[in-house]
Amino acid sequence: MSATRPGHKPKCKRCRNPAVVQLHSHHTAFCRDCFLLYFQRQVQRAIDGERMFSREEPVLVAVSGGKDSLALWDVLQLLGYRTTGLHLNLGIGAYSVLSRTKTEAFARERGLPLLQVDFGAEGHAIADVVGLTRRPACSACGTAKRHHFDRIAMEHGFPVVATGHNLDDEAARLLGNVLRWDMNYLARQSPVLAPSHEKFARKVKPLFRLSEYETAVYAFLRRIDYVIEECPNAAGASQLLYKDVLQRLEAEMPGTKQNFVLEFYRRARSQLFAGNLEAPTTCSRCGLPSHRPVCRFCSLLDEVAAKRQGVRPLAQTSS
Amino acid sequence: MSATRPGHKPKCKRCRNPAVVQLHSHHTAFCRDCFLLYFQRQVQRAIDGERMFSREEPVLVAVSGGKDSLALWDVLQLLGYRTTGLHLNLGIGAYSVLSRTKTEAFARERGLPLLQVDFGAEGHAIADVVGLTRRPACSACGTAKRHHFDRIAMEHGFPVVATGHNLDDEAARLLGNVLRWDMNYLARQSPVLAPSHEKFARKVKPLFRLSEYETAVYAFLRRIDYVIEECPNAAGASQLLYKDVLQRLEAEMPGTKQNFVLEFYRRARSQLFAGNLEAPTTCSRCGLPSHRPVCRFCSLLDEVAAKRQGVRPLAQTSS
Repeated sequence: MSATRPGHKPKCKRCRNPAVVQLHSHHTAFCRDCFLLYFQRQVQRAIDGERMFSREEPVLVAVSGGKDSLALWDVLQLLGYRTTGLHLNLGIGAYSVLSRTKTEAFARERGLPLLQVDFGAEGHAIADVVGLTRRPACSACGTAKRHHFDRIAMEHGFPVVATGHNLDDEAARLLGNVLRWDMNYLARQSPVLAPSHEKFARKVKPLFRLSEYETAVYAFLRRIDYVIEECPNAAGASQLLYKDVLQRLEAEMPGTKQNFVLEFYRRARSQLFAGNLEAPTTCSRCGLPSHRPVCRFCSLLDEVAAKRQGVRPLAQTSS
Repeated sequence: MSATRPGHKPKCKRCRNPAVVQLHSHHTAFCRDCFLLYFQRQVQRAIDGERMFSREEPVLVAVSGGKDSLALWDVLQLLGYRTTGLHLNLGIGAYSVLSRTKTEAFARERGLPLLQVDFGAEGHAIADVVGLTRRPACSACGTAKRHHFDRIAMEHGFPVVATGHNLDDEAARLLGNVLRWDMNYLARQSPVLAPSHEKFARKVKPLFRLSEYETAVYAFLRRIDYVIEECPNAAGASQLLYKDVLQRLEAEMPGTKQNFVLEFYRRARSQLFAGNLEAPTTCSRCGLPSHRPVCRFCSLLDEVAAKRQGVRPLAQTSS
């Protein structure tokens, strides 16, 4: 996919007006209005086709302040769904401050309800967790995010949590899972993950049919003011390497990413993992569902607490 | 994997003599003799671990004249197996002439039996087939190769055909199959493919644990004179793109290729495709096994014959 080529004036495949965006993997081009319609239809198709949620169900939308999650919240609102935003303040310095500001401005301008959780106030700002435990930032962050998504959904009665994962996110994750043949992660990778426990919310990804480029174009055309910076912890993450490699394949063979992800969901996944998922029990600490006696999040908090107790005297000694 | 770094003098992990080769994905380094021993052991492990063939069974070794197939023939001979070479003269100009010369010289110097099939004499030199049918060269070539492997094995009583596919070949093929989620090809990709029909030979890949780099080092250290040029038809083939992309991943994360292929064979494949293979029937034309009434090879010959009849009058008209 690319912007329109200079000197070449493609027309919208729908209305024949001048096109503003070309989508090579779909062999098509659109003007502004038809692209926005196309985008909405792809989201509607994802929601209906995968039975993600109905118009009656309240949807908790996880919003980071980036283009994907704000585009998601915007389009769900336009499509007439009942949405509430959930912003997690991760405690990653200036990046988190900016993310919060953009998210709050988006909600305020549109009069949309926004819930927030502050990792710092909860005692596990990601910057501290990484410094104390030496865990990979993305792994610790993911554990904490999943915990709060489920907790807030349960406490506020949301049956479903929607995240802004796009086609590129799904393709990168799928490539990583496939390179390791991680059968558990492969079995759980889905555009809609039905709750395996009464305290789990349904997790859905309404943007899974749309590429990162398409969500960026959507955010631009809808004049959404989002955080452009990548999370500083993401630099060097394997997800970025996978995206890079997939982009290389996509450039040579347009449609590769789409086929890889959609065929996995359409045929491979169901054929491969029918009924393979194990139901979780309950974490003895926080009471949320877990595959282990103490869930990953509570284990993370334990590790942070232990390090804090161990680290302080050392810091005093050295000063 | 790379050659040893200048200024840095690594030692053989086995005997502590100066190393001549470093294998990053194995976190090891070897001198000449220990590398050759390592290589032989990896091949023996593949043969025994996958029950490819016994020392009593005559093995037909498909030899192109490239490093992989000649390294395979060489190591099987050293390990004491009963081998006969089969060289297919593909009819791809100077490349095929050189390939044949190198293969014949290898067999002659070692006093090894060599069978040959000439695609030109059989009426389907690849250069002609591609020119006439406009089929992708690698696809037409693969169809013809598989046919003659099975035919020669059957006519000469070989229960098993060994090919020189290495870890990089397997990784590239697996990546292509996974990107398309081609369940039939995935189900059939294996280091040992048991014959699904009495007229099929067992197909085995004794080098599947060894990388392209390792077979190149082996061929160099064993002073094997092989064709260095790639097949001219392979330029731009998707296999090369896949290899390139996998090399990029391997450079950042050593061991990726090995894990990708070996984990697929060890766990994923058996878990995913238990008993999924359909047994073939018989081609009504050539009598060899086929999943269709007329096999792919006979269909290819039909297409070549039809084009020859159609093309000649046109060529006469224009002259």
